[in-house]
Amino acid sequence: MRNLLITIRYLGGGYHGFQVQENAITVCQVFQDGVEKLLGRRWDVKGCSRTDAGVHASRFCLSMACDSTIPPMGLVRGLNAILPPDLSVLDCREVPEGFHARYNCLGKEYAYRFHNSLVRDPFLEGRVYRTGRPLDEAAMDQAAQAFVGTHDFSAFCAAGGSVEDKVRTIHRAGVAREGELVTFVVAGDGFLYNMVRIMAGTLLQVGEGRRPPEEVAEILHSLDRSRAGDTLPPWGLFLEQVYYDLPGWPSL
Amino acid sequence: MRNLLITIRYLGGGYHGFQVQENAITVCQVFQDGVEKLLGRRWDVKGCSRTDAGVHASRFCLSMACDSTIPPMGLVRGLNAILPPDLSVLDCREVPEGFHARYNCLGKEYAYRFHNSLVRDPFLEGRVYRTGRPLDEAAMDQAAQAFVGTHDFSAFCAAGGSVEDKVRTIHRAGVAREGELVTFVVAGDGFLYNMVRIMAGTLLQVGEGRRPPEEVAEILHSLDRSRAGDTLPPWGLFLEQVYYDLPGWPSL
Repeated sequence: MRNLLITIRYLGGGYHGFQVQENAITVCQVFQDGVEKLLGRRWDVKGCSRTDAGVHASRFCLSMACDSTIPPMGLVRGLNAILPPDLSVLDCREVPEGFHARYNCLGKEYAYRFHNSLVRDPFLEGRVYRTGRPLDEAAMDQAAQAFVGTHDFSAFCAAGGSVEDKVRTIHRAGVAREGELVTFVVAGDGFLYNMVRIMAGTLLQVGEGRRPPEEVAEILHSLDRSRAGDTLPPWGLFLEQVYYDLPGWPSL
Repeated sequence: MRNLLITIRYLGGGYHGFQVQENAITVCQVFQDGVEKLLGRRWDVKGCSRTDAGVHASRFCLSMACDSTIPPMGLVRGLNAILPPDLSVLDCREVPEGFHARYNCLGKEYAYRFHNSLVRDPFLEGRVYRTGRPLDEAAMDQAAQAFVGTHDFSAFCAAGGSVEDKVRTIHRAGVAREGELVTFVVAGDGFLYNMVRIMAGTLLQVGEGRRPPEEVAEILHSLDRSRAGDTLPPWGLFLEQVYYDLPGWPSL
């Protein structure tokens, strides 16, 4: 048996997230269908995280033990010939037995993309959250610094999550503008349910001048979800990077 | 009556080009449907060019005389609320009576985008022509310089066109790489049927080392279509800019 770490990219609009669910098309299921077509049988797959319905992934990782002898690049090309246009395999590498895409994950980086324009852009459709009000990206960047460090993120966690411990460590956070695109990037050891989308909704209020940047630290310390901003829609959110302790792999 | 110059953006994958045709969905028809919904009647529209089925437009211009009194930004926002996600209005301005989007056009800029990768990218799906062979963008750029100037472009024109005069002036041409994206940009006073796609197909051969860059000038002078490369598919092609002699408008 080989153990493989496979990096995939997908547009999330057509999927109910990664994790297999009954009566819903998920990335995992479509990926496993592809594996079954290529290798002749279905292999179990471990995703690095669940990711919500509609969220995109620039780089999502999964591990899969299988008995195929096809070289990694052959698997990449073979799967890409089978998988649908909105899902592809970027990379495949052998990892030690027992390596698990979720349990071995050291952290992740997400990006939330705002399109700051009065006018819709068909090229960005389904890939940004658009707002016509002018965004002050410097204020947003200042506010985002409050997230950095080890904190209880209860104020930025959707109700109904089953996780007891809401302490997470954020390594980096920032907001930058490129033309009409304003991007919030955040990297940390772990993320609570809807955490990045609530962070983005709170930074949006700051960017629109509806809250001073200093208030974000207060909201964080309040542990009160009702004080933070809205959960923004999934289509602006991208899982950008997954971190592992592997030779040549990017570090958190 | 007012005369309006309207700039639109669209993903061409869902359209049989701009020009109205029977039994096919075209950009012009969908745009006019939107106008009819917003203004209560259908107005005649003049496009800057035909553009083929499947070709995208970063900026396509059309002129429309109508009696609406809605201010330009109101028309932009009103139409964008009605038009489908793959088509939007970027800009609207008043132009003199008699201004015609095609007859007043001084030139256009096109881009053909290559994705130079062994691996499909879902984010670029339908917006690039992918090739896995390493492209030598410097050789392509050198070859593209042969297009600059006033030439008979018969060798780069699809058979079956009705145009007699195949002399056009190309003002700029070049190829540049950004990571895995290699883009051919060409601007000129006019373009023959499939001209940019045949140019791109010929530069592809140069980039892959199947032809020396010097040969492109020979092909041009031969006036022989059979010596040039393949007509590449429409999905890599973007109409980038349309040039007019109007205050504040970009110059060719």
